[in-house]
Amino acid sequence: MRDRLSIDPAHTSAELLQRLRDTTPLTHCITNSVVMNFNANALLAIGATPAMVDIPGEAGLFAGIASGLLVNLGTPTQEQREAAREAATGANAAGTPWVLDPVAAGVLPVRTALALELASMQPTAIRGNASEILAVEGSGAGGRGVDASDSTESVAPAAVELAQRIGTVVAVSGAVDFITDGHRVAHVANGTKLLTLVTGGGCTLGALTAAFLGAARGTDHDAFTAVVAAHVVYEVAAELAASEHAVGPGTFTVRLIDALHTVTPADLAARARVRLADAVFAGADA
Amino acid sequence: MRDRLSIDPAHTSAELLQRLRDTTPLTHCITNSVVMNFNANALLAIGATPAMVDIPGEAGLFAGIASGLLVNLGTPTQEQREAAREAATGANAAGTPWVLDPVAAGVLPVRTALALELASMQPTAIRGNASEILAVEGSGAGGRGVDASDSTESVAPAAVELAQRIGTVVAVSGAVDFITDGHRVAHVANGTKLLTLVTGGGCTLGALTAAFLGAARGTDHDAFTAVVAAHVVYEVAAELAASEHAVGPGTFTVRLIDALHTVTPADLAARARVRLADAVFAGADA
Amino acid sequence: MRDRLSIDPAHTSAELLQRLRDTTPLTHCITNSVVMNFNANALLAIGATPAMVDIPGEAGLFAGIASGLLVNLGTPTQEQREAAREAATGANAAGTPWVLDPVAAGVLPVRTALALELASMQPTAIRGNASEILAVEGSGAGGRGVDASDSTESVAPAAVELAQRIGTVVAVSGAVDFITDGHRVAHVANGTKLLTLVTGGGCTLGALTAAFLGAARGTDHDAFTAVVAAHVVYEVAAELAASEHAVGPGTFTVRLIDALHTVTPADLAARARVRLADAVFAGADA
Repeated sequence: MRDRLSIDPAHTSAELLQRLRDTTPLTHCITNSVVMNFNANALLAIGATPAMVDIPGEAGLFAGIASGLLVNLGTPTQEQREAAREAATGANAAGTPWVLDPVAAGVLPVRTALALELASMQPTAIRGNASEILAVEGSGAGGRGVDASDSTESVAPAAVELAQRIGTVVAVSGAVDFITDGHRVAHVANGTKLLTLVTGGGCTLGALTAAFLGAARGTDHDAFTAVVAAHVVYEVAAELAASEHAVGPGTFTVRLIDALHTVTPADLAARARVRLADAVFAGADA
Repeated sequence: MRDRLSIDPAHTSAELLQRLRDTTPLTHCITNSVVMNFNANALLAIGATPAMVDIPGEAGLFAGIASGLLVNLGTPTQEQREAAREAATGANAAGTPWVLDPVAAGVLPVRTALALELASMQPTAIRGNASEILAVEGSGAGGRGVDASDSTESVAPAAVELAQRIGTVVAVSGAVDFITDGHRVAHVANGTKLLTLVTGGGCTLGALTAAFLGAARGTDHDAFTAVVAAHVVYEVAAELAASEHAVGPGTFTVRLIDALHTVTPADLAARARVRLADAVFAGADA
Repeated sequence: MRDRLSIDPAHTSAELLQRLRDTTPLTHCITNSVVMNFNANALLAIGATPAMVDIPGEAGLFAGIASGLLVNLGTPTQEQREAAREAATGANAAGTPWVLDPVAAGVLPVRTALALELASMQPTAIRGNASEILAVEGSGAGGRGVDASDSTESVAPAAVELAQRIGTVVAVSGAVDFITDGHRVAHVANGTKLLTLVTGGGCTLGALTAAFLGAARGTDHDAFTAVVAAHVVYEVAAELAASEHAVGPGTFTVRLIDALHTVTPADLAARARVRLADAVFAGADA
């Protein structure tokens, strides 16, 4: 592992992006039916190999073969819930890194229960908005309620606590993303408001996070660095998609897929806006 | 309630569009897996907040929180059927307006039975093509068979009867849409043939109808006016998307999402083609 | 049936394309949730009428009404698996031509078993990549393992054997597609690498194959000719979509839908790259 103080996020993100394109990591997705198509296309565009395997009897086996796994709870049918448990178990047994995206946890009961169960299985990363992270974190802390208007910064202490307790990387998405492994924190200030006008704008980031975790295997980059890279690459691509001229959300979505395919290390160097710090400072800031 | 004779549909549609954009109504969709992504993006583009919550144990609860609900029967899995019943019950208990879109009712038995059951639960609006409306209307009238080639005008008497019997707004989609609450009728002549070349062209209108019903809550606009507004706004946006120059259906779909985001009151004033009348005249016309 | 030696694939493909546009064949799809929207839009664009009917209690009945049926095993939920069996039975009883697309057969156990079961029900055509075709062919031959890197040419003997044993048309997709009915073979060299960057690039070809089989009913074109036509038309459209200037996969997908709508007989005449031969030569080549 490199000395974390020497990490340049734009540089490590570019390294992992190249690694991803070279290794085309098989990215196993159990995800919601709203974004399946978009996420598969985003994964293909960035250079990964998506596979949506979400039925019991196949998901566990496949999680052991895959380079990375995403479990997204957006539309959790009974079969998907069973497949999610199977896949998490299979991923843990095989050492496959996996991402939990607890969509709407805290609001809806079936997925909230499942999110807590899956979080206890120690995903490699948990990605969500502030409300969702609070809902998952609240499991052991008695809960603090859920407020979708919470900023990512305001939930930094909860995110750090969750990361330390479970031993995971927690990524809180918002205007500025907050990412922590419980020891380090990163603030990623890239992105565009247009991402909030496209369904699956966050879910796609979860899928890319699984792909970047897969790409980081066998390198000297740890999960924290891979999660930061996924955020930087995705959001810089989104900026490129939004930047040509004023566009509506339909055109933006098409260009985002194009931009994921064409984003370069030079784009990352020019645009990455990441601030790294020790977790204690984040806690103090909050 | 305003005097209905004084209603200018372009003006009321613009008012409700602005209201929708100001209030971003939480629009709960139980819809088919073919159009989920497109409908969610259309709702985001127009200014609503979509949420596809379609499993038992969550759908009923969420229908009580939502501003509006769509129940679309396009791919009605067992879980969706149960969730649809839950949601309709939850919506009725909470006073949430809801739309029934009885896709392919009359042709396929499982959804036809469910459509009749849901229609008896008094949805705020029912939207479908002529065949589907006839199938739902036929429940109490012994049926008149189903013919996809029926024009919207030819089913006007059945639509008026259905609207009066259930106490709902019935919207029959076609080259000219026919909308009635059993007392008033509106003929909306906007739209483009390209909408028939995009899957979910009608389903998306159903989703927007739920959003406009949500936006109309707390205003002096009734459900009939909200349903007309959804049709006018959607179809004017479709005209804008089709109008730039000759386009294929792929490009049109992208531009439709853009146009839903950018359509203005001035566009509605310039383009709305709505004829309002009393229901008796519609019956006499048919 | 025409003398096969006199067939000009560009000409017969153009004939069947025109026939498809004239008759708008009702194309029944049981397909995976990743590509449902894209496949429905591709079918509409080419001129067919898609209907995604994938629940038990409806699928068998509808397969008897439809002009053609696709059974794609990409995300085979329990309901879809039951619906697939129903639909295959209904199609066989009614004489509806149907296509089996055994996505990921050989890799994942649930769908592999189902693929073998469905193959034994004698689909009109089976379309897949080399690995998938080997997996389905291996059912009676003791298996030869599955290798995704196999070229279409290398599996030609297995494809011919499968076609002869079941009495079906086998289409192996790749850089050059290999299509055989056990007696004749066609090599289709059209297409673009961009198709591999879009999810459902192959699945969509399966859906169009069902539509072309539907269009060929009542003509003097047999299933082999219809399957070849689907490949030629789809891949020429893909070339047109890719050819305007350098595009990313997002833009390409949109243009592909447009191109399916606008592709002409002249395009086919100018671009079709098909080599026809007797099956024995294909076996000798491999």
